[in-house]
Amino acid sequence: MKKINSSQVEERFLNTLLEISKTVKKNSERININQILKLIDMIIDVDSSNGMIFVYGAGRSGFIGRCFAQRLMHLGITSCFVSDAVTYRYSKEDLLIIISGSGITTSPLAIAEKANEIGGKIALFTGNPSSAIGNLSDLIIQVEGKSKDQATSLITLAPFTSLFDISTLAILDSIGASLMGKLNITETDIDKRHASIE
Amino acid sequence: MKKINSSQVEERFLNTLLEISKTVKKNSERININQILKLIDMIIDVDSSNGMIFVYGAGRSGFIGRCFAQRLMHLGITSCFVSDAVTYRYSKEDLLIIISGSGITTSPLAIAEKANEIGGKIALFTGNPSSAIGNLSDLIIQVEGKSKDQATSLITLAPFTSLFDISTLAILDSIGASLMGKLNITETDIDKRHASIE
Amino acid sequence: MKKINSSQVEERFLNTLLEISKTVKKNSERININQILKLIDMIIDVDSSNGMIFVYGAGRSGFIGRCFAQRLMHLGITSCFVSDAVTYRYSKEDLLIIISGSGITTSPLAIAEKANEIGGKIALFTGNPSSAIGNLSDLIIQVEGKSKDQATSLITLAPFTSLFDISTLAILDSIGASLMGKLNITETDIDKRHASIE
Amino acid sequence: MKKINSSQVEERFLNTLLEISKTVKKNSERININQILKLIDMIIDVDSSNGMIFVYGAGRSGFIGRCFAQRLMHLGITSCFVSDAVTYRYSKEDLLIIISGSGITTSPLAIAEKANEIGGKIALFTGNPSSAIGNLSDLIIQVEGKSKDQATSLITLAPFTSLFDISTLAILDSIGASLMGKLNITETDIDKRHASIE
Repeated sequence: MKKINSSQVEERFLNTLLEISKTVKKNSERININQILKLIDMIIDVDSSNGMIFVYGAGRSGFIGRCFAQRLMHLGITSCFVSDAVTYRYSKEDLLIIISGSGITTSPLAIAEKANEIGGKIALFTGNPSSAIGNLSDLIIQVEGKSKDQATSLITLAPFTSLFDISTLAILDSIGASLMGKLNITETDIDKRHASIE
Repeated sequence: MKKINSSQVEERFLNTLLEISKTVKKNSERININQILKLIDMIIDVDSSNGMIFVYGAGRSGFIGRCFAQRLMHLGITSCFVSDAVTYRYSKEDLLIIISGSGITTSPLAIAEKANEIGGKIALFTGNPSSAIGNLSDLIIQVEGKSKDQATSLITLAPFTSLFDISTLAILDSIGASLMGKLNITETDIDKRHASIE
Repeated sequence: MKKINSSQVEERFLNTLLEISKTVKKNSERININQILKLIDMIIDVDSSNGMIFVYGAGRSGFIGRCFAQRLMHLGITSCFVSDAVTYRYSKEDLLIIISGSGITTSPLAIAEKANEIGGKIALFTGNPSSAIGNLSDLIIQVEGKSKDQATSLITLAPFTSLFDISTLAILDSIGASLMGKLNITETDIDKRHASIE
Repeated sequence: MKKINSSQVEERFLNTLLEISKTVKKNSERININQILKLIDMIIDVDSSNGMIFVYGAGRSGFIGRCFAQRLMHLGITSCFVSDAVTYRYSKEDLLIIISGSGITTSPLAIAEKANEIGGKIALFTGNPSSAIGNLSDLIIQVEGKSKDQATSLITLAPFTSLFDISTLAILDSIGASLMGKLNITETDIDKRHASIE
């Protein structure tokens, strides 16, 4: 890649936005909707039987995961992001949602192995279903978008894992929208649970 | 909103993804590209004159901000997310990038006021340019997408601030793509700076 | 301060540990025990009337605060660290515990002002009771140890705010011990709530 | 343990503080000072040869670790806490400092294994030198204080791992004091690097 001049920056910026937009759309076409429906039911089932939802991911996947852990709380679902000050004890009744594009990231893999040993459920958002974490998971959502293992080989405008990260956030927020519908939760309900000092 | 049955969940999920895709596209049409080009130059100028880039936001805006602080590091630009263990001293030579949909969130506003007092530059990603933080900012990027102040009034499928959050992440990653071009940085360069233990 | 040779490092290391030990002891002699007892009662009262405990601090004070937010969860008390993924809505029935040595740190002050506006209770751990945050607080625990405002004037071996930070952690864990006694909670109870995947 | 009445709370609180003070002092008597001196030299060596210091721990150990990662930055030493937004690439030239009382915590163990595979140095603060992480470490600091594996068997006033956590923080800050002396850094130097917006 050659250094671009200022007049090319605008084009690159706008084309990257369009690439992201198209990748999100592509997810709506290719996603395994049955797995999404199963995950939504799993979240509701775990929550309604007093289980908790744990979310984990490393790096940017972790920041995307934190967005979802917070949204679950907004919906009245007991959740935590693993490593936050309040990280509950994970047990058989709980669901661990892991985000790992490659499916082999160090700490998510170790945490999935431990969760699997304890015996709770695991759901994975990944670009690589047949990965080590995939093999430990009860449910896998395959996400369109470049994950870390493709970062230097697959040519895209959006840097590194950006397409995977944004696609995953879009899918998780669409799951949030679906949960709102299924649980009959309104924006006003969310507002009543949203942080007021932050 | 009435509780929806399982057959409607699929539709709602897919329509939310499409809504997100369209909102990202709408950003490419409506964004003030001059402000984007100015911000890209500002980041490069600050970095090349030994200043640092500080990123901050509260809640989900903060998680989006962390994604960008990390990406800047991948590009070889000295950055930190304010509140992380390594938060540098902010001074006149530095740039603070704040993400706040409403433009009035408590801690980002306080931190912007402090940064303004110190005398460094401030850039804001917001849905509300004429907000308190907007008034303190040297540069404002107006983002399409529902921000907190519109959360209960503007009807969307994506919950609460999701459209603002995802749009902002998409814009920030497109800025990342532009920086790669301007600075002649490749995916391999990023890979060499990407966390190896995480 | 002159650069010391290797043979002096040992002495400095051990003397710093002793300084810390003495400072913790000094806290046991000088602390206002009535304020401690009031805080313990306040925590129990808030929790038993379905209120929640919020903890906040910036920088190292924040990391100390996270230790306490976690301990409260171990004791079965609903708590969160403000800025974590799961940060609840603060309301009149809740208690915000702030750690700020100087009592004027930017984001803790802004958050205390917001909490005060909402109308819940505020407790402060500080070296400066007559500070801005002190003026907003319902209850103040004065901690022995050098806080940020004394950092460059008061000569100690332990660097910067270390004596304040460690003293505060020691006091918070002693409050934890007292809560265990008052609530009849055992180490086994804590173990049952301690994170199992982390 | 029986529920205690209010008149016993005061006694328990003060005795816990004294127990903590004594435990910190005990560390000054029992610590292997040669290992401390080696770690101080290792930190200086790594930093002066353009290596970086990585710090990691899970739960409360992680919060203690963040305090130290920040202190290192205050001393002008390039550092990061693994999992923060800016987590650098770990390589052979770097040092990873892990805090794990039990020496077998899930994510620190996985991260130590990965670091060992990459080939950099590892230092461990633990209550269990002959643990899995201990076996991977180049240098071990044994800390006095109850760690997780002793949490329900060893009777102390301070809850669960508090004695290990506070002892480790005290030791790390005493290392900070020693580094100040060796590197001829003053409180004013720290002040110039301390966060100004937080």
